[in-house]
Amino acid sequence: MSAPTVRAATSPSAHVSRRDVHARLHREIEARFAERRPVVERYGPDFAHLWQLTAEHARGGKLVRPLLLVEAHAAMSEATGRSWASEDQVLEIASAVELLHFAFLLHDDVIDGDLHRRGELNLVGALAAEHETGRSPHDARTTPSPEGLHWGQSGAILAGNLLFSQVHLVLARAHVPHEVRARLLDLLDHAITETVAGEHADIALSDRVARPDLETILATALRKTATYSFALPLRLAAVLADAPEAWVERLDTAARHLGLAFQLQDDYLSTFGDAARHGKDPHSDLREGKETAIIAFARLTSAWPRVRACFGDRALLQESAARAVEALRGCGADRFVLGLVAEHREALGTLLADDDAPHALPPRVRTLLGALDAQLVGRES
Amino acid sequence: MSAPTVRAATSPSAHVSRRDVHARLHREIEARFAERRPVVERYGPDFAHLWQLTAEHARGGKLVRPLLLVEAHAAMSEATGRSWASEDQVLEIASAVELLHFAFLLHDDVIDGDLHRRGELNLVGALAAEHETGRSPHDARTTPSPEGLHWGQSGAILAGNLLFSQVHLVLARAHVPHEVRARLLDLLDHAITETVAGEHADIALSDRVARPDLETILATALRKTATYSFALPLRLAAVLADAPEAWVERLDTAARHLGLAFQLQDDYLSTFGDAARHGKDPHSDLREGKETAIIAFARLTSAWPRVRACFGDRALLQESAARAVEALRGCGADRFVLGLVAEHREALGTLLADDDAPHALPPRVRTLLGALDAQLVGRES
Repeated sequence: MSAPTVRAATSPSAHVSRRDVHARLHREIEARFAERRPVVERYGPDFAHLWQLTAEHARGGKLVRPLLLVEAHAAMSEATGRSWASEDQVLEIASAVELLHFAFLLHDDVIDGDLHRRGELNLVGALAAEHETGRSPHDARTTPSPEGLHWGQSGAILAGNLLFSQVHLVLARAHVPHEVRARLLDLLDHAITETVAGEHADIALSDRVARPDLETILATALRKTATYSFALPLRLAAVLADAPEAWVERLDTAARHLGLAFQLQDDYLSTFGDAARHGKDPHSDLREGKETAIIAFARLTSAWPRVRACFGDRALLQESAARAVEALRGCGADRFVLGLVAEHREALGTLLADDDAPHALPPRVRTLLGALDAQLVGRES
Repeated sequence: MSAPTVRAATSPSAHVSRRDVHARLHREIEARFAERRPVVERYGPDFAHLWQLTAEHARGGKLVRPLLLVEAHAAMSEATGRSWASEDQVLEIASAVELLHFAFLLHDDVIDGDLHRRGELNLVGALAAEHETGRSPHDARTTPSPEGLHWGQSGAILAGNLLFSQVHLVLARAHVPHEVRARLLDLLDHAITETVAGEHADIALSDRVARPDLETILATALRKTATYSFALPLRLAAVLADAPEAWVERLDTAARHLGLAFQLQDDYLSTFGDAARHGKDPHSDLREGKETAIIAFARLTSAWPRVRACFGDRALLQESAARAVEALRGCGADRFVLGLVAEHREALGTLLADDDAPHALPPRVRTLLGALDAQLVGRES
């Protein structure tokens, strides 16, 4: 650091509730969209509408990633007694992390040909529906015309690009010392490269370019999800709280365990969970032929022929799907994936319990990561 | 500016030929790809191959935009006697402008469903062909399978995102004073928003969401092409050469005239030019139903029914296309568009001839813009 003028930590103290932080983050993300509105409106109503609709679809997330950044920063700067950023600046950077998440989702939905997310029309689907009807309400289950789909997917690519640009600009314009900003940009650079690599590997799996072995599937999940969802917020927070390098290594390890446990738990719930509770299309992973750890395990067993018959069958009937799930249970794929989840949760627990080490994470950070594990991985829907 | 420590201009002097600058820019762009190669290779051969193929497809352009930046910077910093950036830094920023151009082309090709550019397979087409054949040579004219197309388009979206990210990072990391860097980022921000707005308007025209009147078509061309191709390089150069505000206004006006004249001349050549000379698919604009100034004019005339019959007909035969072109000539659409081109070239000429004004552009800048007009707009193929 060229200047040792470390500001006093003005991070949210323990008495600020998670609900308060969530509300402030929500307002901060709204502000990111609102501040661009006058610029966007210069280019006419269609473009302004695209931005408006993007803002609406970006709403309603759990804000897991920006919450993690804000809370980890508060916990770490309390421990270091230092922060390079004011509370408002931390919120602004956290909002950029949520925009990055949403930009990735938008391009993902285009690549996967998805029209829905969380049971409702996503941005692609909403734009496609508007194209058919001229912006009136529309039956969410109607298949759009090729022109409507083109309008929706093109809009989502462009909206994603605008958000992607904003994420970089928020970090590049952050009012922190130059060397700190350089480190934030390096973290963004790394997270984007790794996430794009993970997406590419995921597409290679679904387009049958890559071999769907367990190693490839787990490496893909790590890159596509864990890096930007857990490692990026934690490492940005660490830089802003001037945390020692020993913490950063532990945060990276924790992010890997959290990311894998979260993804594997998600795979488990999608296949074996109660569809009514988790709100997803039941058996959609089977129908789409999604290469998961469950499928990779089943391929190694005598149950595979019965699963393969259903795997990737878009017209799969409920009854056949239920039989395939039974075959997966029969070969132990459910216990296998739950075993992997438990292993990663245990490794995380061991890391978080290690309070004797000279560079152990501060207690509040360990509490935070433990709570996140319980919230994300310990869930049943 | 917080620090008045303006460095001596070490910009390429007049004796450095355009060919030299072109060769150095070419090496600089190669360096942008090469410096990322070790990072990308960490993620396995498929991802490394995507990056390698992207680098190959980014090659071979005329480098109009980065050349304009380097030469305009040299001319302006000669006149101001100042530069905020060394020659190498200017080259680096110029290389980012070329990467931005290529990122836009990649996403454009996905949105337009194009598999070719300059008569050869583009990145989408090349990836799709490899998907079919397992990376062996492939007949460029074969229609790819849906899976191949998906692999190609997904790869181009992701490669575009990596380049898009790099463009921001090059500017955000530029070794120039903070206030100068902030201005560079503002220019990038503006250019990206305006270009994305232009692309969105272009899609609205092709998806029949926007009314294809002349005003909309010209505004779209301005936003989609003129801003990032001409205004962005000129304004980045002006900031780096510490040029006075009065020059910047003139540069913006010149960029608008150049951009429109260039686009209209391109439309003219695509419809009325000698296909054998300009190397494009003859009548592709007609076949694709591309809304151009030519078509907007024809819509207002009695020739329209004869043109409309062919407009957007993907299976259009050579003979029918030739008759439609005759109808367009008959109604004066060729003279109309050439008249618009001439008007914008004249306006540019008047601006460049204005050497009496107190804040006239330096002679070398005027020579440069005049030469660019002759090169881009005065061409016949």
